[in-house]
Amino acid sequence: MNYLVMSSEERKREYEALAARYRAFCGEGLSLDLSRGKPSAEQLDLCEDMFSAVASSADARAENGFDCRNYGELCGLAEARRFFSGYTGIPAENIIVCGNSSLTLMYDAITRCMLLGTVGSPRPWCREEKLKFLCPAPGYDRHFAITESLGFELVPVEMTADGPDMDAVEALVRDPAVKGIWCVPKYSNPTGVTYSEETVRRLAAMETAAPDFRIFWDNAYIVHAFGEEDDVLADIFALAREAGHEDRIFYFTSTSKITFPGGGISMIAASEANLAGIRAAMTVQTIGHDKLNQLRHVRLFREEGSLKRRMLAHGAVIGRKFRILLSVLERDLAGTGIAEWTSPRGGYFSSLNVPDGCAARVYLLCKEAGVVLTKVGATYPYGKDPRDRNLRLAPSFARDEDLEKAAEVLTVAVRMAALEKLLAE
Amino acid sequence: MNYLVMSSEERKREYEALAARYRAFCGEGLSLDLSRGKPSAEQLDLCEDMFSAVASSADARAENGFDCRNYGELCGLAEARRFFSGYTGIPAENIIVCGNSSLTLMYDAITRCMLLGTVGSPRPWCREEKLKFLCPAPGYDRHFAITESLGFELVPVEMTADGPDMDAVEALVRDPAVKGIWCVPKYSNPTGVTYSEETVRRLAAMETAAPDFRIFWDNAYIVHAFGEEDDVLADIFALAREAGHEDRIFYFTSTSKITFPGGGISMIAASEANLAGIRAAMTVQTIGHDKLNQLRHVRLFREEGSLKRRMLAHGAVIGRKFRILLSVLERDLAGTGIAEWTSPRGGYFSSLNVPDGCAARVYLLCKEAGVVLTKVGATYPYGKDPRDRNLRLAPSFARDEDLEKAAEVLTVAVRMAALEKLLAE
Repeated sequence: MNYLVMSSEERKREYEALAARYRAFCGEGLSLDLSRGKPSAEQLDLCEDMFSAVASSADARAENGFDCRNYGELCGLAEARRFFSGYTGIPAENIIVCGNSSLTLMYDAITRCMLLGTVGSPRPWCREEKLKFLCPAPGYDRHFAITESLGFELVPVEMTADGPDMDAVEALVRDPAVKGIWCVPKYSNPTGVTYSEETVRRLAAMETAAPDFRIFWDNAYIVHAFGEEDDVLADIFALAREAGHEDRIFYFTSTSKITFPGGGISMIAASEANLAGIRAAMTVQTIGHDKLNQLRHVRLFREEGSLKRRMLAHGAVIGRKFRILLSVLERDLAGTGIAEWTSPRGGYFSSLNVPDGCAARVYLLCKEAGVVLTKVGATYPYGKDPRDRNLRLAPSFARDEDLEKAAEVLTVAVRMAALEKLLAE
Repeated sequence: MNYLVMSSEERKREYEALAARYRAFCGEGLSLDLSRGKPSAEQLDLCEDMFSAVASSADARAENGFDCRNYGELCGLAEARRFFSGYTGIPAENIIVCGNSSLTLMYDAITRCMLLGTVGSPRPWCREEKLKFLCPAPGYDRHFAITESLGFELVPVEMTADGPDMDAVEALVRDPAVKGIWCVPKYSNPTGVTYSEETVRRLAAMETAAPDFRIFWDNAYIVHAFGEEDDVLADIFALAREAGHEDRIFYFTSTSKITFPGGGISMIAASEANLAGIRAAMTVQTIGHDKLNQLRHVRLFREEGSLKRRMLAHGAVIGRKFRILLSVLERDLAGTGIAEWTSPRGGYFSSLNVPDGCAARVYLLCKEAGVVLTKVGATYPYGKDPRDRNLRLAPSFARDEDLEKAAEVLTVAVRMAALEKLLAE
């Protein structure tokens, strides 16, 4: 039933039927959550061997003999750098391995730019009159929050099926106040889109007015396909070097969604010139990160193919959650003409667009029926979705049986909100 | 033999005898190190139970049921906050427990002040014309490096047997550009001095021109006595609150020298108003620190008295190292009139003063004989000891047999350098 071509009478009947179902849901006392991009315990149990990966002091030596219990190794263990190199394709010497949070590395990278500047900076960013940052949207709220908290003007750029709208990006970077762009280039949060090769190529090659423009490349879902079918992401480092822009890239990833979200390890990679500045600041900031945890990770993935095997096991769990969620959306919303959503091959999110002006209403209807969605607007700069139409769906943390119920409440809410709008027109 | 009252002839003979011993040392091909304030493997082995403290997923739940593997708990586990509260005396609600490095917490605290300001700031510190920071000297080079790297003018304040010269401090803080002071208040690096109650009281009570003046209270050696005899440090939080200055204190400590230097946990404590700002920035910077490691620590110290027992075991090891070092100094330098040194009851350092203008020469003589000392000047702002007389001695990491030899080389070098100066006069 396409709601757009229904008569007013049909819409009213449909609405009443949905409202009755909705009232029934409200009577069930539900408490369900589709808001959190957290792995489930079932996924975390895949790394049970982490607890015994380094079992004694005798076992706590790095390959170079370094006692991982003690101070030192500012740039991380050599074998931990090789571990990240192995699946990012970045040379180990361009990688620094740090603590449990790549978000912290991004925050620190940008505060360094603010206080000290970076390669090519005429002055520290905090000395600039005006600072702007490009925010592909819908995107990741925690990225936007970093630049917002530091006083940047957040400039939204529309996300397309190929990544950020590159015509818009190329026009915006002619403004020297634009210092960078946030990117989740693979299985993007929340659309699940992987940037096309052309997008990556244009990001690497474009001319920017700011001589110290930086791409914050948060490749959080680099090995996070649900199964053997995986998107292919172009190598931004190689393309940037080709274009003579190797200093443009700050590259981040972590094992937060490979091992343990709270107890993983993270990395920043950059050109040699950038790394010199990063190391100089980092040596003032710390004597070294937790090498015992780096060693645990190296041990866990020592065997050839173990990362692949483990990620397929993760993918099987989270792929199943996506199938449950998306099959309800397909069943209840396909053909209604009022909603579209993404079906990624990996990552943690699907993005659902409802008719303009309806997202807040859907959020509220869900909330009152006991289903928590990611806060409406969170996927846009300043938490404001200009069209009030985008909802981020995060099925990973919910139990299977809850997921189906939550998806049903959601699709009822979407249809009600859309009909309310159509009936008011 | 007091070198100061020797005849020129006696000095020459003494120098020749020492030079002969020195040449013999040089022929031994020594490679010894008194420069590093690192615990020895013998100390680290005291926490062997860390490796099995959290042995499985089932074991990885916090007392509130939180799955420590996952995201969350920005302020740290409640039981980890109580752990630090137990021995700092600070209420748990004023404590945030973080990652492995308190140095990072200090760096982050000051970059927050730079970029965002803190309670009472008229503007972010990076917007001030001029920034100054008080540096009790001799002091900790890594403290000085943080403020130097961020563009502060480092203002030295003389360390006395009671802590920083408070008359000087009270005069200097009348300058509104002076934004704070670095303090290692107990078993200070490198003098081993513990601030007197009067010093702490005056720091807490003094009037400062900057409304957002901050005391960076790095209580790194709070439970680090060598034995039952322990210095008593006054409670700066209580005294600051009494004086109406509770927002003045940023308090730091960590388990780096309790458990593992590279794999410990750290904390920042502050007033409720300060914490509100810290939490607001930290929630942008991270989703949470490594709670598995927090849990390991809580488990390790679960039993009543276990911290005390473990620190006495640490103290026995490091106290033994100090006795070896200081007994050689006593034997070879007491009564010479050319050197004085501190004999602390805890901590990691002794501070040796030689005649003005001789420290660099002692350093060089030691280096050429194969004994590495902490870089001369490191204990002063900008790495420059204005009197060229202070040497930081760090006996913890050396083997006992090496320590005795290194101390002998050192005392020979001190006497040679002093005699060279006396002979040239």
